[in-house]
Amino acid sequence: MEKKALLYEGKAKKVYTTEDPELLVVSYKDDATAFNGVKKGTIEAKGSVNNRVSNHLMGLLTKEGIKTHLVEELNDRETVVRKVSIIPLEVIVRNIAAGSLSKRLGLPEGTPMKHTVLEYCYKDDALGDPMINDYHIFALELATREELDKIAAMSFKVNEVLSEYLKTVNIALIDFKIEFGRTSDGEIILADEISPDTCRFWDTVTQEKLDKDRFRRDLGNVEGAYQEVMKRLLGV
Amino acid sequence: MEKKALLYEGKAKKVYTTEDPELLVVSYKDDATAFNGVKKGTIEAKGSVNNRVSNHLMGLLTKEGIKTHLVEELNDRETVVRKVSIIPLEVIVRNIAAGSLSKRLGLPEGTPMKHTVLEYCYKDDALGDPMINDYHIFALELATREELDKIAAMSFKVNEVLSEYLKTVNIALIDFKIEFGRTSDGEIILADEISPDTCRFWDTVTQEKLDKDRFRRDLGNVEGAYQEVMKRLLGV
Ligand SMILES: Nc1ncnc2c1ncn2[C@@H]1O[C@H](COP(=O)(O)OP(=O)(O)OP(=O)(O)O)[C@@H](O)[C@H]1O
Ligand SMILES: Nc1ncnc2c1ncn2[C@@H]1O[C@H](COP(=O)(O)OP(=O)(O)OP(=O)(O)O)[C@@H](O)[C@H]1O
Ligand SMILES: [Mg+2]
Ligand SMILES: [Mg+2]
Repeated sequence: MEKKALLYEGKAKKVYTTEDPELLVVSYKDDATAFNGVKKGTIEAKGSVNNRVSNHLMGLLTKEGIKTHLVEELNDRETVVRKVSIIPLEVIVRNIAAGSLSKRLGLPEGTPMKHTVLEYCYKDDALGDPMINDYHIFALELATREELDKIAAMSFKVNEVLSEYLKTVNIALIDFKIEFGRTSDGEIILADEISPDTCRFWDTVTQEKLDKDRFRRDLGNVEGAYQEVMKRLLGV
Repeated sequence: MEKKALLYEGKAKKVYTTEDPELLVVSYKDDATAFNGVKKGTIEAKGSVNNRVSNHLMGLLTKEGIKTHLVEELNDRETVVRKVSIIPLEVIVRNIAAGSLSKRLGLPEGTPMKHTVLEYCYKDDALGDPMINDYHIFALELATREELDKIAAMSFKVNEVLSEYLKTVNIALIDFKIEFGRTSDGEIILADEISPDTCRFWDTVTQEKLDKDRFRRDLGNVEGAYQEVMKRLLGV
């Protein structure tokens, strides 16, 4: 599978077309951004960690019956994925209060949620990715009722599978952001990535943060944390 | 029905206990505030307009099978209501984009929504009444799934009844905020008020604003607009 043309360059990945119109190659970058692009930097080897971690976790989800865009890992940084039309929603699942949820509800970081929280943010940089609800999604015609029910059910299932698995390597899944897309025949599948860039991972014993918050909050040892996640998940 | 003790003084109303533990007297003030209390002022005769308009609309809703706290209007400013334990949610229904929704979604004010929008804000002044969703409500244990389903259904019904009725007096119901409470036997009923303070009313012909936005945005003729609403609804 060869890359043809650069289709889209995002903050974290480049996306290329291939000879197959149903397939894309995603190439993960070391570039890191935070706060809607305001903070910029580089995390050494992040691209390869995120590529390999994301593929590992999506492989696990596939085995549990969740359809994902993953087709084949090409090399350390590059993966063949099914081309989808991305639904412009950041779908966030939260088990423990952190980040914007802590601010919104006035809950100290680390407070367990009495009910798993699902949130949607409208992927629109100009608007600052505002939180929206089901009715906004219908009003904006971003997804149908049926699609949103599917997205919610899949998101809770992803949370169950990943939380369970990560516990076995002493990682607590605090929260995560995922994206969904429609395939050419209209099916909703999981797309984008699942990595230390898009999840909050806390060591279950030390509570140490093993994710992008180390970069956002200048906590130091950013590269080390990404490597540690790869080591725990892939043994390398 | 006599007022006994002042139970609570809010920004717009005073609430008194009575000899009947199930009943309260609400007394509407002329005080006006906006932007979470930052802007302060007085709107002459607002208290009596809001009291009479709210009772008129709640009476209409009662006839259409929606249970409200309204018991009996005592005088221009004061009304006997059923005492409830207020559910700390601002329940907002939107037919046309305006205010915070216009900002959130980048829609010009006046854009009709393709689907009626229901929003919940957590009534918490310190947090700035943040928008929250069903899952936050369950996590915070503010209401049960059954209660929230009831609140949503009642809110859409209130919107239908009021929109239909207001059209007959050339008023477009752009959006409104309502509050619900639990009676002593756990039933969910409509409480608080429905008035130019809590609704956006636009003249259907001239698009003139007949509500608190005249105060918020210094549009002038604030008293006149409140009087105009009373005249159209009550003929006085
Ligand atoms: N299977 C897929 N098919 C098509 N596009 C995809 C797929 N998976 C992910 N994408 C998209 O690839 C783009 C590049 O990813 P990247 O994470 O770098 O974007 P980003 O800078 O975060 O921007 P965005 O705000 O669009 O997410 C994103 O828009 C993402 O939604
Ligand atoms: N039937 C009722 N039983 C008990 N309390 C009620 C009832 N109806 C309204 N209230 C409450 O009366 C209080 C006073 O009303 P007011 O509108 O002045 O409050 P406010 O300044 O807007 O403050 P808040 O932020 O609490 O709404 C409010 O807290 C309101 O929720
Ligand atoms: Mg991205
Ligand atoms: Mg009030």
